[in-house]
Amino acid sequence: MPGAPDRDSGPRLTPGEEARTLLAATNVATLATLSDDGAPWGSLVAVAALGDGAPVLCLSRLAEHGRNLKRDPRASLVVAEEGRPANPLAAGRVTLAGRARRPDDPDALAAARAVYLAAVPEAAAYVDFADFSLWVLTVERARWVGGYGSMASCSAAEYAASAPDPIVPAAGGAVAHLNADHADALLVIAQELGGRPDATVARCRRIDRHGLDLELDTPEGHGVARVAFATELTAPAELRAASVELARRARAHADAGRDGV
Amino acid sequence: MPGAPDRDSGPRLTPGEEARTLLAATNVATLATLSDDGAPWGSLVAVAALGDGAPVLCLSRLAEHGRNLKRDPRASLVVAEEGRPANPLAAGRVTLAGRARRPDDPDALAAARAVYLAAVPEAAAYVDFADFSLWVLTVERARWVGGYGSMASCSAAEYAASAPDPIVPAAGGAVAHLNADHADALLVIAQELGGRPDATVARCRRIDRHGLDLELDTPEGHGVARVAFATELTAPAELRAASVELARRARAHADAGRDGV
Repeated sequence: MPGAPDRDSGPRLTPGEEARTLLAATNVATLATLSDDGAPWGSLVAVAALGDGAPVLCLSRLAEHGRNLKRDPRASLVVAEEGRPANPLAAGRVTLAGRARRPDDPDALAAARAVYLAAVPEAAAYVDFADFSLWVLTVERARWVGGYGSMASCSAAEYAASAPDPIVPAAGGAVAHLNADHADALLVIAQELGGRPDATVARCRRIDRHGLDLELDTPEGHGVARVAFATELTAPAELRAASVELARRARAHADAGRDGV
Repeated sequence: MPGAPDRDSGPRLTPGEEARTLLAATNVATLATLSDDGAPWGSLVAVAALGDGAPVLCLSRLAEHGRNLKRDPRASLVVAEEGRPANPLAAGRVTLAGRARRPDDPDALAAARAVYLAAVPEAAAYVDFADFSLWVLTVERARWVGGYGSMASCSAAEYAASAPDPIVPAAGGAVAHLNADHADALLVIAQELGGRPDATVARCRRIDRHGLDLELDTPEGHGVARVAFATELTAPAELRAASVELARRARAHADAGRDGV
């Protein structure tokens, strides 16, 4: 099994931030509800999120999951990383478990409707149909898995107080660009700043506001490294300069090593 | 909501075949199990399938879903179409509900282990660890949703007796090629053979052994069409000739119409 990233290599997203970031990046999830005999029932759903991260669903009362929630509000929602890796268990995912309720005052209903339509524009065709209802999942527990060996739970309070990372959803292009055009820089970064001088190939797995997750080939097999930015990013526009700074710092480190400094 | 395809426009995959085809095309799914308080718990899992379509999982006894199944074998598994459409609810998906059991004789265990390792090669690193167990889901009910307005259930017997479609998993390249290079042919096919003379743009959504699913732009909005091949395909190698035959037939039909024949 691939080794887990070193958790001491600089700041990382908290489990609550990981969970919020996954939900913010998608509009599809898998809902688990209870059938009339108490058996678990999974179904694909479109999803949005309120400002506190509470997931919003729009379900037909005629559909099995809609009937299930009406009978028993207990539910969990699995949100998986978009553009999943070839190895399914290397993907980030989170289970949000709690209770679903229909918003009970007009303001709450309007807020749920607004975020749902923003995330799922196609729902304009049916959101107001009599047999469809908006549901809000009050998250009581979140269980995040970041891939092999990287997992943590967080409480309802931690989840609600967290915010999505501002960089992850916008960094897909930067990740692809680094991997396509700057494999040499990534390798030096892994070797000099990631504590993996044995790396022979480095690919960028993800970028968040604190730094880069790298996947490595090494003589001993698959490896991972974590490299922190000099300063935390606050906006995607800072990605380019921060990546260039990392590459410069790594090359300076390598030169200093070669010069025996 | 987009209109449902015309179910009378030639043969289609049965719900059991749709379910088996979805499972055969992927190695990732979402599992729903029961937590110790009876609440539904969703989790991402890697998955394989036995010859009768029974899903195979490999779960840690330390993980929540592994503990859940040991306590209560009731489970369901959601398998969604790979490469999902932009509109999440337009994706094909199936819920396979039943009971999970650990294979109880050496031959059954070996069969489960073999299909699992073939589908999830990374599992070689942990499949034989003492804390991991192989589980087989006996499917008691399958609920397939093919997108808006297209859904059906099938029994355990229908599911087990069905086979994955031989064309769908291999047709991704053909679908992309038709959409990229033969939009003109697709439009004539939709207009002349799909019963949609009002179509202004046609995209291929999927190809199965019986024919093409098309998505249309029309003056009235989004539409769909179904066009059957002259004869059912038995192997992906027949895709090209069958597509060419459709295009020829559509153009001949158009020419005949223009000539007043």
